[in-house]
Amino acid sequence: MWQIHQAFTMTHEFPVCFDRNTLDPEHSVLADILALAGRGPHRVLPVIDDQVLQGHPDLVERLHAYAETHAKRMTLIDPPLIVRGGEICKSDPAEVDEFYQRTQSDKIDRHSFALVIGGGAVIDAIGYAAATAHRGIRLIRMPTTVLAQNDAGIGVKNAINYKGRKNYLGTFATPFAVINDYDFLSSLPERDRICGMAEAVKVALIRDGEFFHWLYDSRERLAQFEPGAMEHMIARCAELHLNHIRTSGDPFERGSARPLDFGHWCAHRLEELSDSDLRHGEAVAIGIALDSLYSHAQGMLGLGVLKQIRETLEGVGFTLTHSALKALDIEAALQGFREHLGGELCITLLNDAGEAEEVHEIDLESMHRCRQQLLEGTWPQ
Amino acid sequence: MWQIHQAFTMTHEFPVCFDRNTLDPEHSVLADILALAGRGPHRVLPVIDDQVLQGHPDLVERLHAYAETHAKRMTLIDPPLIVRGGEICKSDPAEVDEFYQRTQSDKIDRHSFALVIGGGAVIDAIGYAAATAHRGIRLIRMPTTVLAQNDAGIGVKNAINYKGRKNYLGTFATPFAVINDYDFLSSLPERDRICGMAEAVKVALIRDGEFFHWLYDSRERLAQFEPGAMEHMIARCAELHLNHIRTSGDPFERGSARPLDFGHWCAHRLEELSDSDLRHGEAVAIGIALDSLYSHAQGMLGLGVLKQIRETLEGVGFTLTHSALKALDIEAALQGFREHLGGELCITLLNDAGEAEEVHEIDLESMHRCRQQLLEGTWPQ
Repeated sequence: MWQIHQAFTMTHEFPVCFDRNTLDPEHSVLADILALAGRGPHRVLPVIDDQVLQGHPDLVERLHAYAETHAKRMTLIDPPLIVRGGEICKSDPAEVDEFYQRTQSDKIDRHSFALVIGGGAVIDAIGYAAATAHRGIRLIRMPTTVLAQNDAGIGVKNAINYKGRKNYLGTFATPFAVINDYDFLSSLPERDRICGMAEAVKVALIRDGEFFHWLYDSRERLAQFEPGAMEHMIARCAELHLNHIRTSGDPFERGSARPLDFGHWCAHRLEELSDSDLRHGEAVAIGIALDSLYSHAQGMLGLGVLKQIRETLEGVGFTLTHSALKALDIEAALQGFREHLGGELCITLLNDAGEAEEVHEIDLESMHRCRQQLLEGTWPQ
Repeated sequence: MWQIHQAFTMTHEFPVCFDRNTLDPEHSVLADILALAGRGPHRVLPVIDDQVLQGHPDLVERLHAYAETHAKRMTLIDPPLIVRGGEICKSDPAEVDEFYQRTQSDKIDRHSFALVIGGGAVIDAIGYAAATAHRGIRLIRMPTTVLAQNDAGIGVKNAINYKGRKNYLGTFATPFAVINDYDFLSSLPERDRICGMAEAVKVALIRDGEFFHWLYDSRERLAQFEPGAMEHMIARCAELHLNHIRTSGDPFERGSARPLDFGHWCAHRLEELSDSDLRHGEAVAIGIALDSLYSHAQGMLGLGVLKQIRETLEGVGFTLTHSALKALDIEAALQGFREHLGGELCITLLNDAGEAEEVHEIDLESMHRCRQQLLEGTWPQ
């Protein structure tokens, strides 16, 4: 037996920009990003979430005006590809299929760009399509929701659902760039604005105690969507998320540890049990509360911080109880999470705000008691 | 505007083993590879090319005997997934779909393994399926043809066809390991054994003059498939291919240069024009001959080496002319290749055996004359 040991490294890099009014022809962020790939003009296929288009009906017109001003850098493909926003674009193959067809008919190759403007689901689905067509078309993401701007739209994963199984197909793929334009948030329904804050509380609790205390102090401003507070919340959450990917040593999740999945082991299950009455962010907020209660019950997390976690989550607008929590089969959900991780259970708990710890076993009796406290609102006093 | 510059590196590594009789229970290569992922036992879903099964009807039985002996390392999923060999498994979504369903029903997660045993097309299709299911299942490849062992089955690309368009969907993904077992070659039809040698001549010409001269000297032994010669040809071709991926600085082909595509700009087109009468290796042999003739016509390649190239290709069994060559629209094929590369034309030519040079323009009149020489067999003397 003779053997060659093949080994090489790949560098992945991309800018994540925080901006307003990106499509104002006088703003150069988008054109500058395109110029990173050479002078151009570059072919750009815009892919737009129809829910975003409803809130911003002049979007296509503005894209055209922008492309006209920056014609040296970009050739906008007309018409844009409009896709259905929300989970449907991940569950129904029609959107991904249309992307594959448009990239062929519009001669979008590996050196051309797709520019996706939308919420997390659209970014996930088009991210998958762009990562697989031609073995990868350059993708610029413009996330339009709080959740997409601070979490789902800035990372290195994409996914679609497969025959009812959520996120079953996907790849790890870095975008060419991300532009978070805060102006898109203005048209968001209140419920969606609240939802996005769960990931900020989560990443603060596992990574940055100071940020958590800022969230606690700012909970009323955040509940009112005060722009300055929202912008800081999004930018710092995104930064911590990106820091984690960069420094974890495992950006493409080959191991079992998933610290960013704090509070998530039961969240997907709660979403399913609620028949999607619970949004992802709402389920994550409940998951954070449950694992914080459990961390306290295990003697890890102090009572003061536990109370602050509750006040923060409820303060920004979350409801921390739901009938789905009653129906949750804790043992089965933990087993499902164990399989998702690939055999070894890794659950992130808290020693303090900003101090996470991985555990590999859960005391089921104690977890049941915590669930009961959460259901009844009888948190330790 | 505020900006985070996200950057990280990923290390990719995998062993490529050259072996015989890998599934002899006394051989530990496969078990040792599984142990790289932890002691185990690891769940292994075997995926087998039905054409390989025809030539090796005891294969499933041998897999079971192997798994039984190495039960501490592996749990073999039963039954194996049998897929249709050849291009059909890339064109018809049925195989990929069945893989997605089996990985779910057999609880194959990101830490489990798929073990694919087959020719280049099966490795391509199952490679795509394994790269996308669960965002990537660990894949061990056992290529069974000359072409798959020295080229198609050892690299970092996978692909399936999409609505008639060859290789339109794919990803760059490294396998967990590759095991080239020479014993699988014994059941190959003569034509397939010859086909695989085109890539060896190609990589020798662009990378290793000494290897080319060995191929020239060994052409009769290779034509007779003398095992020692075949093994050296495969191992050295694979090694040069892997060296290129490792040292090119562009393993995932983000740029325009494609030195490994020497002789390939017209090959895909010739395959299509011949209605698949020409196999890939046969078309590549014609492509190598054409670009060698052109390199000579441009005053780059000496007459002596040109003659040796012809004698090597014809000596191992290739026919260097075909009616599809007559039908080839050179200008359109170059334009198609330019688009495939993403805008800039990069054609690899030869200054000598082992000395390649990229050019960005082609003298069409000269290329037409070379095609005529090739068609008529009137090479420069």
